Amino acid sequence: MPQDQSEHIVRSYDEQLKRLRELVVRMGGLAERQLADAATALVRRDAEMAGSIVGRDAEIDALEREIEAFCIRLLALRQPVAQDLRFIVACLKVAHNLERIGDYARNAAKRTIVLASQPHVGSMNGFQWLARLVQQNLKDAIDALVNNDAAAAERVWANDAPVDDIYNGIFREMLTHMMEDARNITAATHMMFIAKNFERIGDHATNIAETVHYAVLGDSLPDDRPKSDSSAYAVVRPPNA
Amino acid sequence: MPQDQSEHIVRSYDEQLKRLRELVVRMGGLAERQLADAATALVRRDAEMAGSIVGRDAEIDALEREIEAFCIRLLALRQPVAQDLRFIVACLKVAHNLERIGDYARNAAKRTIVLASQPHVGSMNGFQWLARLVQQNLKDAIDALVNNDAAAAERVWANDAPVDDIYNGIFREMLTHMMEDARNITAATHMMFIAKNFERIGDHATNIAETVHYAVLGDSLPDDRPKSDSSAYAVVRPPNA
Repeated sequence: MPQDQSEHIVRSYDEQLKRLRELVVRMGGLAERQLADAATALVRRDAEMAGSIVGRDAEIDALEREIEAFCIRLLALRQPVAQDLRFIVACLKVAHNLERIGDYARNAAKRTIVLASQPHVGSMNGFQWLARLVQQNLKDAIDALVNNDAAAAERVWANDAPVDDIYNGIFREMLTHMMEDARNITAATHMMFIAKNFERIGDHATNIAETVHYAVLGDSLPDDRPKSDSSAYAVVRPPNA
Repeated sequence: MPQDQSEHIVRSYDEQLKRLRELVVRMGGLAERQLADAATALVRRDAEMAGSIVGRDAEIDALEREIEAFCIRLLALRQPVAQDLRFIVACLKVAHNLERIGDYARNAAKRTIVLASQPHVGSMNGFQWLARLVQQNLKDAIDALVNNDAAAAERVWANDAPVDDIYNGIFREMLTHMMEDARNITAATHMMFIAKNFERIGDHATNIAETVHYAVLGDSLPDDRPKSDSSAYAVVRPPNA
């Protein structure tokens, strides 16, 4: 093969990998925005904004399909090995995580539409804090993918414990509001599920970080990630019990 | 290349694909069992059984890692194209779905441990029905993968609507139990989340069916899957409101 033709193929392959990276970054940006908007719509009790979040989810779903088709084409035509192969498989997995994140943001937005017509229950501080932490982790995880930065990925992976603590606090606070006044129950239930949605988005950000770490170094992080979600074990007694 | 050596390589590749299929089937069987046991532990309020479900989840996680490593090795060494490539990518995705299913079963089991010490709330019929439907869909989706059966996969995909209906019914029933008596709130909240776990397992079974359909035929099912989860919009008024 003449040298210029071989260089052309190599350059074109690099361009394809670059294009894949760009698609994942664009999808990550959309998912971040959906999460940020879901938190804003919740805090402002803005049903209209929540409705537009629900409508935008299809864009994220379409990007996942585009990335998957692109990855399969790359695997078939380029037959990559070693780090390129791990990177392409990582993009497949990250796209799936981002699609799930989009679904959780959409579900939070749906519940916000209901909340806008319900009585105020408790404070929004915990939700704002939770959403901000999770959004930062998501952003850092995507940045780690873009920069092939395993150390940054490991920092995100280790940073999930505060998310779980805030989530546990919200869960218990909502239980007490329900017990104090039955008129809070519908709102507090939806708020619990919104907090759960944000917490799950945090889990997916952690998964993305694990995937990036594996793609860069080819080995896995340990199983025992710092994790303190104890809400599954939560018991709160009503005031009259 | 002498003919016998070429045949040897082909046979060995087929054996590797067969081995991959077996790994996914084993993982699917484990996930089915975790779900079935989670439902039984819930109905019997059996905290010990629930504890053993929590303990067994690591086995499913280890299988996901084994399948992923196996898929990446196959992609690197065999450089598959067309249907084989789609099958291997499908196995990666299905293993991820099964790992999530294992997590949801584990979370339901954790909550069952709490419920065993809480007052009885409502009936378990809805939960049994929900778990049975979801388990059947999961089994059918894995069978469709084993048999390369796109028509069977499409039937599973279209069969999710009853799951959502039962889930919505449980969600609303639990809200009313909370409103009737504040002492029900802790138990009813955990039961809502258990129902949500089962419903999410159903979603993952549907995702597996979609993936199988794509792996066999190379085209996607439509976006607008029959879906009737309206619980995100649920509002129930307390008796004294």
